[in-house]
Amino acid sequence: VSSLIGIDWGTSSLRAALIGADGQVQGEVSLARGILTVPAGGFAQVLHEATAQWPQHERSLHLACGMVGSRQGWQEAPYCPCPAAFEQVAGSLAWAQAGHVAIVPGLTCERDGVPDVMRGEETQVFGALSLLGLESALLVLPGTHSKWVRVQAGRIVEFSTFMTGEFYALLRQHSILARTLPQDETALDAAEFERGVRYAMACANLLHAAFSARTLSLFDRMPPQSAASYLSGLVIGEELRSQHLRDAREPVVIVGSEALTGRYGMALRALGVPSRAVGSEATWRGLWTIAQHLGKPV
Amino acid sequence: VSSLIGIDWGTSSLRAALIGADGQVQGEVSLARGILTVPAGGFAQVLHEATAQWPQHERSLHLACGMVGSRQGWQEAPYCPCPAAFEQVAGSLAWAQAGHVAIVPGLTCERDGVPDVMRGEETQVFGALSLLGLESALLVLPGTHSKWVRVQAGRIVEFSTFMTGEFYALLRQHSILARTLPQDETALDAAEFERGVRYAMACANLLHAAFSARTLSLFDRMPPQSAASYLSGLVIGEELRSQHLRDAREPVVIVGSEALTGRYGMALRALGVPSRAVGSEATWRGLWTIAQHLGKPV
Repeated sequence: VSSLIGIDWGTSSLRAALIGADGQVQGEVSLARGILTVPAGGFAQVLHEATAQWPQHERSLHLACGMVGSRQGWQEAPYCPCPAAFEQVAGSLAWAQAGHVAIVPGLTCERDGVPDVMRGEETQVFGALSLLGLESALLVLPGTHSKWVRVQAGRIVEFSTFMTGEFYALLRQHSILARTLPQDETALDAAEFERGVRYAMACANLLHAAFSARTLSLFDRMPPQSAASYLSGLVIGEELRSQHLRDAREPVVIVGSEALTGRYGMALRALGVPSRAVGSEATWRGLWTIAQHLGKPV
Repeated sequence: VSSLIGIDWGTSSLRAALIGADGQVQGEVSLARGILTVPAGGFAQVLHEATAQWPQHERSLHLACGMVGSRQGWQEAPYCPCPAAFEQVAGSLAWAQAGHVAIVPGLTCERDGVPDVMRGEETQVFGALSLLGLESALLVLPGTHSKWVRVQAGRIVEFSTFMTGEFYALLRQHSILARTLPQDETALDAAEFERGVRYAMACANLLHAAFSARTLSLFDRMPPQSAASYLSGLVIGEELRSQHLRDAREPVVIVGSEALTGRYGMALRALGVPSRAVGSEATWRGLWTIAQHLGKPV
């Protein structure tokens, strides 16, 4: 039994962790070396530099997930179709360096004739399920492109993407609303955030709901420094509106950073929906679980 | 009976028209002198320059609508509350120069505790109704911030704003979708546009539907040069989704530029809803009708 180097390699950043044979994270590193910064053929070198502090683990298995497996990444790992069990994902690794560096494939699913995709989140999902000891759950992985994932009996049955974080950034930085929003991120105003969540649900259309951030400020019905909190509530509420939360018998599992899981937990609570949170350790647990499954520690 | 100078003075541009006593437009001018370009106290001078080609009408009534009546404009014309009849709007002009330059007030209405506003569109609505000889209608004024307006027995009963044009521009220019969209505006692909309209309706959430513009392109299921048409269909479809179009007994009245009324007409047709279009002459007709009502050509 040996240790593992886990790698979460996305578009804008690279995170790596030294994971012991027992699954415990022994060290972690984060670099602004997302795949978009890596020249073709340069992935091995960047990875080598990123893990230079662990020379004694140079020959350990390196297992990566995220956009590193996309067409623009190190090596394309073709999407696994849903429903997808853990075993299918673990059995479909793409080897960037034979027996040494493997990449976890992303998933695809289809609804209404339109495909959806994820890369990296599948690893977080399997990791979160393992950490929580669950076989079935409704999970949300909030972010630039939030993923809602339904798991039944250990299989990812379906998922869908919501461009929530990206819409928030667009509205915050480039829209007419940006003129009246505070320039600096201020502390979250929970009351205005929840007001935004509720209004988005009632309004049922963000194209209309977003305009309220302007008119409420125009009519002095919102503290100016709370406008960003309200807007955050609007976009998260719009995302929650399309989930079948009344059917959720178990707490929704939120996987992500503390800041985001906190906001989503608050929004769900405002709607009377219980939730539980898992942090970034889900990625490392997911990679470690896949490595265990390989049954061949290098 | 005398002629009238009509002025449509918005945030980014100024349009003026010489309108004869019979309501016919005898000349028109358009300048990039929106209110944001005018220094405080400089409005009279800019207007004088804009209408310099009509010196013999210098003493005619000048009637303006649009953001020129906002706090950032020449003189604030306080919003009239809905429901608002034509007579109330015509009777609430703000005089920027006594007996000479008047500004048409905007409208406000309230729903779910949130105010909505318009400035300029009220004049287009009254003008379109006059041109079409209607007393009741459902109207849409597409644009950066589209307005849906319900008129009953000559009164604007309620309206709501959709940030459709702005969301389209944000997604087109600043989002991840911009990477795969053609840089130049290409000819409208009617089939992909209608596909976007239908998918937005089926999906019922733009945060999710917008991601399809990425995945369809990723899976080569859409001609790359048609991606902007599809995206346009998505945002317009999302706007149409929230209108009570099945209740519409009469054709929806679309007021705006030829390009936009064409797209909205096409989208409505795809949903089986009849429409009729009115162009920018609605503004001049609205201003002329208000001037008639004043009963005192200067």
